[in-house]
Amino acid sequence: MSDPSLVGSVEALRVRLRDARQGGSTIGLVPTMGALHAGHGRLIEKARRECSHVVASIFVNPIQFDRPEDLARYPRNLEIDTAFCARLGVHTLFAPATDEMYPAPPACRIEVGTLAEHLCGPFRPGHFNGVATVVMKLLQIVEPHRAYFGEKDAQQLAVIRRMVADFNVPVSIVGVETVRESDGLALSSRNQHLSAEERGKAVALYATLQRARQLVESGVTDAREAIRQAAAAIPADPAIRLEYLEVVNPQSLQPVESIVRPVLIAGAMWVGTTRLIDNISA
Amino acid sequence: MSDPSLVGSVEALRVRLRDARQGGSTIGLVPTMGALHAGHGRLIEKARRECSHVVASIFVNPIQFDRPEDLARYPRNLEIDTAFCARLGVHTLFAPATDEMYPAPPACRIEVGTLAEHLCGPFRPGHFNGVATVVMKLLQIVEPHRAYFGEKDAQQLAVIRRMVADFNVPVSIVGVETVRESDGLALSSRNQHLSAEERGKAVALYATLQRARQLVESGVTDAREAIRQAAAAIPADPAIRLEYLEVVNPQSLQPVESIVRPVLIAGAMWVGTTRLIDNISA
Repeated sequence: MSDPSLVGSVEALRVRLRDARQGGSTIGLVPTMGALHAGHGRLIEKARRECSHVVASIFVNPIQFDRPEDLARYPRNLEIDTAFCARLGVHTLFAPATDEMYPAPPACRIEVGTLAEHLCGPFRPGHFNGVATVVMKLLQIVEPHRAYFGEKDAQQLAVIRRMVADFNVPVSIVGVETVRESDGLALSSRNQHLSAEERGKAVALYATLQRARQLVESGVTDAREAIRQAAAAIPADPAIRLEYLEVVNPQSLQPVESIVRPVLIAGAMWVGTTRLIDNISA
Repeated sequence: MSDPSLVGSVEALRVRLRDARQGGSTIGLVPTMGALHAGHGRLIEKARRECSHVVASIFVNPIQFDRPEDLARYPRNLEIDTAFCARLGVHTLFAPATDEMYPAPPACRIEVGTLAEHLCGPFRPGHFNGVATVVMKLLQIVEPHRAYFGEKDAQQLAVIRRMVADFNVPVSIVGVETVRESDGLALSSRNQHLSAEERGKAVALYATLQRARQLVESGVTDAREAIRQAAAAIPADPAIRLEYLEVVNPQSLQPVESIVRPVLIAGAMWVGTTRLIDNISA
């Protein structure tokens, strides 16, 4: 399969996509921050099935990082990512420099309001405003018919769905199932930071979510009780710290007290110095 | 000239414009809140010259009103406005109900940051966020090639230009010169609220701006001094109150201390219970 065309400038991308669009292509966008893995692969495969021209973007968006050390150590390897995209048949790889996306600090940003009140929101101040802002930019630059996001980042997906609805952005947002390791650990670019020992412990997050789901399926309707019981079984290990575990409405992301399904059960866990997130529907 | 097609739903508008776009039309958008006057007329005329399909929107956007009484008494007359648009050759008049634009209160909004720190911003909390939010929606709904805004609302125009740049929205923003009465009063839908006596006094705002420009042109470079002298000549009249008079950078809208031209001189003045704004370049 031929290499995707690597494009760094907004203007060059627009010209290229104008031609594709005029040729009748359906354009699919897979926005990423690089460090591509099989989870991204599933997004690209779905886009390839549904669209005739697939754009993957790689941009480590500084305004969505709440911790400078997280931005600094976020994994980057454009060469490997380009080969990955080539294998999966990506047509255009958009990898702009930071200056190209932010020639000046943006005066205008998206404010996501109540959608950031729970789950990761309180622990990552400004994160979802930064995500929504860069995704809005990418949607305006690429003007895709469809855009693909992983369900692993459930709050991000809900924020983007709501943003697209609130602003009438003419795009279909497609959520794609989380890819997991054989023990259940959700694939994430941040898993690279785990030592072998930490990797073994990291399954505790998914195991906790599964316990919570089992409790809900077995008839527990008190969300606090389900959370308490599921969290109580986390191994006592100084390397592991549960940051949050919440049961929320899948659209509004507001916590539920008495569970009426469907609900979203989501958590964040620190394993060593690495923060992992995951979620499960019940 | 035939009547413009009156469209109330986002979906119907999209279908209509898809056909126009596929037929090769260049689409121009003139967003308004109705109560159309010759200032809007000049926007429409310019759009007609530059675009093959002109969409005018009429929507009194509740989320940009900081005072409920201003929203309640904002003039509305769709029948007269429709006839006005017909005379000027508008192709499509988009006049959605509030529920169509906001099926639910928007969770996501545009935050315009420092652009609202001065001029009208401090006196109208949330106003420019509301304006930016509804304009972003209209740009996503209409997907125009060009969108037209009056220079009378200079801060609004600067906010929209910056928003479009910050979010890479694929549209050209066109500013259109203010239309004035013979005595210099800028046309505004709110002028309808002025009594005959107030109407006579309302010219004080433009006269003040002109004095400030003369001072700048005559070599005054101390912005505070220019403002002080220009404001000092406002007639002492209990019906008139200057809300602000500022000299700012035309793009950043930040106040300048030592004037380096070009600058924007802008003011707001209450005449009776009516708030008027105007501006002048120097």
